[in-house]
This record gives sequence, C-alpha cells and structure tokens, in this order.
Amino acid sequence: MMNRSTGVDAALRWDGERLAILDQTLLPHREEWIELRGAADTAEAIRRLAVRGAPLIGIAAGYGLAMEIAGASGDAAQAMDALREARPTAVNLAWAVDRVWAAAETGGAEAARAEAERIEAQETRASAAIATNGADLLAGARRILTHCNTGALATGGSGSALAVIRELAVRGEVEVLASETRPLLQGARLTVWELARDNIPVTLLVDGAAAGLMRRGEVDAVIVGCDRVAANGDVANKVGTYAHALAARAAGIPFVVAGPTSSVDPQLPGGDSIEIEERDAEEVRRPGGELVTLPDVAVRNPAFDVTPAELVSAFVCERGVAQPPSAEAIAALL
Amino acid sequence: MMNRSTGVDAALRWDGERLAILDQTLLPHREEWIELRGAADTAEAIRRLAVRGAPLIGIAAGYGLAMEIAGASGDAAQAMDALREARPTAVNLAWAVDRVWAAAETGGAEAARAEAERIEAQETRASAAIATNGADLLAGARRILTHCNTGALATGGSGSALAVIRELAVRGEVEVLASETRPLLQGARLTVWELARDNIPVTLLVDGAAAGLMRRGEVDAVIVGCDRVAANGDVANKVGTYAHALAARAAGIPFVVAGPTSSVDPQLPGGDSIEIEERDAEEVRRPGGELVTLPDVAVRNPAFDVTPAELVSAFVCERGVAQPPSAEAIAALL
Repeated sequence: MMNRSTGVDAALRWDGERLAILDQTLLPHREEWIELRGAADTAEAIRRLAVRGAPLIGIAAGYGLAMEIAGASGDAAQAMDALREARPTAVNLAWAVDRVWAAAETGGAEAARAEAERIEAQETRASAAIATNGADLLAGARRILTHCNTGALATGGSGSALAVIRELAVRGEVEVLASETRPLLQGARLTVWELARDNIPVTLLVDGAAAGLMRRGEVDAVIVGCDRVAANGDVANKVGTYAHALAARAAGIPFVVAGPTSSVDPQLPGGDSIEIEERDAEEVRRPGGELVTLPDVAVRNPAFDVTPAELVSAFVCERGVAQPPSAEAIAALL
Repeated sequence: MMNRSTGVDAALRWDGERLAILDQTLLPHREEWIELRGAADTAEAIRRLAVRGAPLIGIAAGYGLAMEIAGASGDAAQAMDALREARPTAVNLAWAVDRVWAAAETGGAEAARAEAERIEAQETRASAAIATNGADLLAGARRILTHCNTGALATGGSGSALAVIRELAVRGEVEVLASETRPLLQGARLTVWELARDNIPVTLLVDGAAAGLMRRGEVDAVIVGCDRVAANGDVANKVGTYAHALAARAAGIPFVVAGPTSSVDPQLPGGDSIEIEERDAEEVRRPGGELVTLPDVAVRNPAFDVTPAELVSAFVCERGVAQPPSAEAIAALL
C-alpha cells in the first residue's frame, strides 16, 4: 500500500488530477487499487462500499465532483446529486459535495479541486487531533471494544475511534476487542487487518458476544465512530452500535463516540429524523458469500442504528470533547 | 422428514432400539438423517451440533446412554461422562443422563430404555403446555422477535419459544423477526426453515439490528428459549440474548424466556456460576464457511451469555409462568 504525504497508510490516493482507492471489498485477502475517473465512478464505488467510512466517503466525493467539474464531460449538477445520494446516512457526503460545489460556483474547476484537497487535509488533521483528545479522555483504559472499522480505511489520516486506540497503544498497553460487524464484517475484515499491521493485539468476536463480555467485566471502555451526530448528541452509526451502548451503560463503562465535526449535522434536532439506509437482502442471506438460509426469505437490513445521547459518555472531535454530548456542549464545539 | 407418533415434525427418531437424528449442520440445504449407535456417536453429534437445543440434547443423550447400556459394549460409566461433558452449559444434558443412569442402576437396560422414552414423552408434553402458557401470556402481541432456534429442531415436541409463536399464529396474526444468531446462524438456517414450513411470516435480520428495531417501535415482544435457568431466575441462553434483553427493557416491551423445567437448575444460586462454553475460533473466522479475516486472529467465541433475572419479564414452563421469575416464583413452579 502506498503512503500519502501525511505518512499515514491510506485507502485513497489523489495525485492532483486522478483519484485511486483501495478496493475495500477485497480486504483482507487482496490489496487492489482502482482508479475513479469522475463522479459516476465515485458514486458507484461509494454505493458498493469499495470506499467507505463517513469521513472517507466525504473526501472521495469531493474529489469525484472536482474531477467531474474539471472534465466538463456531462451535467455536473446531476453528477453532484448522484454523489449526494450514493448513501443517505453519513452527513459527510453532502457536506463535502456542497463545499466543492460552492467553490466551483465562485472559482471554477481550479477552486473545486483546491476545495477537495482542503477537505482531505482538514480531515487528516482532524484525525490526529481526535487521537490526542480521545486518548487523553480514555487514559488508563486497557481493554477497549470497538465496532465496525474507523481507521485509515474509513477516514482521512489514521482514523476516528481507531486513531484514538492507536494513540492509546503508543502511550501504553492496549488490547482491542473487535466485534465482527455483520452484515459486511468490517470489523473482521478491516479492523483486524489494520490493527494487525500496527502490531496492536486484537481479538475478534461476534456482535452478539460483546454485551456478555462487558457484563463479565472484561471490557474497560467502548469507542466507536459515527456517521451522523444530531444537534442533541444522538448518534447514527453502524448497525449494532446501539446494543453495545446499552451494554456499556449496564456495565458501568464509558461509551465514547469519536468523529470529525464534519459528521455533526447541526440542522438535525435529534437522531430519530436521520434517514437509515436499508441495504440489499443478500448481504444478510449470504454471510461470507454462501447462502445460509432460504433464498427468498424476507430480510430487514438497516445499515445503521441510532444511539440516544443519554447513552453516550462523550463525543470526541478535533475541537475537543463534549462530555456528555448535550446540545449545549456540541454547539460550543462547532 | 418423518413424523413421530406425536404427529409433530421432529429432528430425532427412536424406534425402540435405534436412534436417528436429522443432521442440523446441513440445514436448510439438505435434510439428511444419521444413525447414532451408542454414547460415543451421540456425544460427537452433540458436540458438533448435528443435534442441538437444550431439551433435544437431553433427549438424545438419554437414548445414547440407554443404547450404550443395552449394548454393554464398553465402559458405560465412561460413556455417561462423555455424554455429560459433550457440552457444558445446558443443564438438560446432565439431567437426562442422570435419570437414565439411575434407572439402569435399579432396573438394568430395560429400565434405562424406558426412562429415556419417558424423558422424550415428558419433554414433548412440556412443549405443548409451554405453547399454551406462553400464548396466553403474550396474547395480542403480533410482531415477535426471537433469537436462535427453539422449535422442533431444538426440543421434544414443537419447541419452547417457537412453540409459543406457533400457538400465537394459530390464534391470530403473527409476524416473526428472527435474528440470524452468529456464529452458527441457527436463526437464519433453522428458525427461518421451520417457520417457512409452517407458513408463518418470518423476516431475517442480523443480530446487531434487533436493538434498533425495538427502539423504533417495530417489535411487540421478544421470546427466547434457555439453556439453563438458575434458582434466582438468571438465564443462560445463546450468545446475543442478553443484548436483546437490554434492548427490550429500554423499549418497554416484554422479554420472555420459555423452556421446560428440565432447563432449570435449582442447585445453582445465580447465573454467574454457569459455565459458559467457549467454542472453536473457526466458527467466527469463517461465517458461512469462507475465511473473512486474518487466518490467525485471536477469537473469543462464547456460545452463551447470561441475562440477569431483573431483565426477564416472565419465565414460561410447562407448569406455568413465573412473572417475574423471582427465586420464590421459580421454586413454586418446581
């Protein structure tokens, strides 16, 4: 895997004109880069989760739109809509697309490209600050449970929740418990792979095992990322997060949410109005690829759930910590 | 699939001398019966989950020991130990083996066989009574979430929790939400298959999605089976159960546990002293058969978790309902 100028392993590479992404659907078995040539390519890669993670899809969408505007090959406004709608839950996508579009309106293609690059740089800096803020907050926690993937594969820089874990591992001893994160197994496929590359000890478990381990006193803290944080501190994140939050509360351990301010949606009063993406039934019928149930069974497959603010011990972003994440504390960070 | 004399589809067939079981590891793709010739065969089938479900492994173990005693081919005491230790968490296994052994001590092989048959008959009657008691308790519940498999594939008769659901479906309209139950997917493989055969509408979801659906008001009640119930009402059941119980409590909906009294262990003061079986790491590394993570990643794979009695709305057994399942209410049922 190539390094970006930040020196951090990355899942996305921009050379000033062209965008390449590490195809995350093939990990951990194959590391294959694919080139994205415009907005349609980028939207498709986001939809099929070749590029994923709320901050990273924002960065990718920014570049996708900038390439489209530079190429002037079609209807840029339509391309923008396709990118915005590629996935509905993470607010970072609309945030990045809107920024690049606004830049293009005043400064054309050059300004659009510069804005996309600013977004990536901003998100990379945010990641580093989140790592520091989160590690300060969780000082002393050794056995840390996380869900889904929130590392360099999900963000600019080294991650959100996983960046905090990395910083804790630099400062002292850390053991990570990674829940596999059905249906698409980002915990098993991506988090295990990233942590193994960093030589941070990681233990994999099924999602349903996390609550019992917390109850038995085997976890010191839970930290996860976020796809959208409402003004009141409610958090939309990968499906399965809410159950982990309930279990952390019952066990009396911290449940921390980490993410850049680009994941905060101050327009949204509460989590219940966040649109939850419903994905393809085949993701549930075929874990690991093989059909395990009846081929035509009905499926509910929400990709995210909402954790109410009252279960969140703290929200950690690049500007500081909202602890607890009350509407006032979040507004103060923005 | 053949019918037993009860007229209920069954996963186990005893002709007076020989035991056959439906190999549940092959469902829902293939229905294949295998013959078990003695205690070693039976213990192996229990270990590899070819026969599973707390009540059903009790029944199978009873027949396995009776065959061993009748055959007098080896050391019956050793065979008894192997059966008792095939799986540690469900108390039904030790309960059935002890009964058959005690019968043999006083009446020999004939008495052992008769006792094993009494166990199956008793468990089949229990299933019917649980269905009635549970359906009375949950009258009016339409959208019912269940975990793992607790039907005819798991018990004598038509099930424990799934028998209640079947009875509710006879009385009125029911929609079942079945969580897939990682790692071995008994919900996806077995519960979906059983309910489809009964024409009861079923929707499959990943385990991590259950809590969010409860929070959104899409579930009226949760009902699960049990592998061991302690004297104080704590319940060991398939891993993932505890998280569902926390979510049901947070959503203000009933969380009901159903099982025969053979699953109650009055010797055990509380759930924390229940031995939790830890199973093979490969079950987690290879969902559906395919490796999805690093081949050597460390794994925690507890097969069960413990739900404290305070989260259980009611325990339903063949003798009635303990609501809530206090030590006094459970003692009164025994």
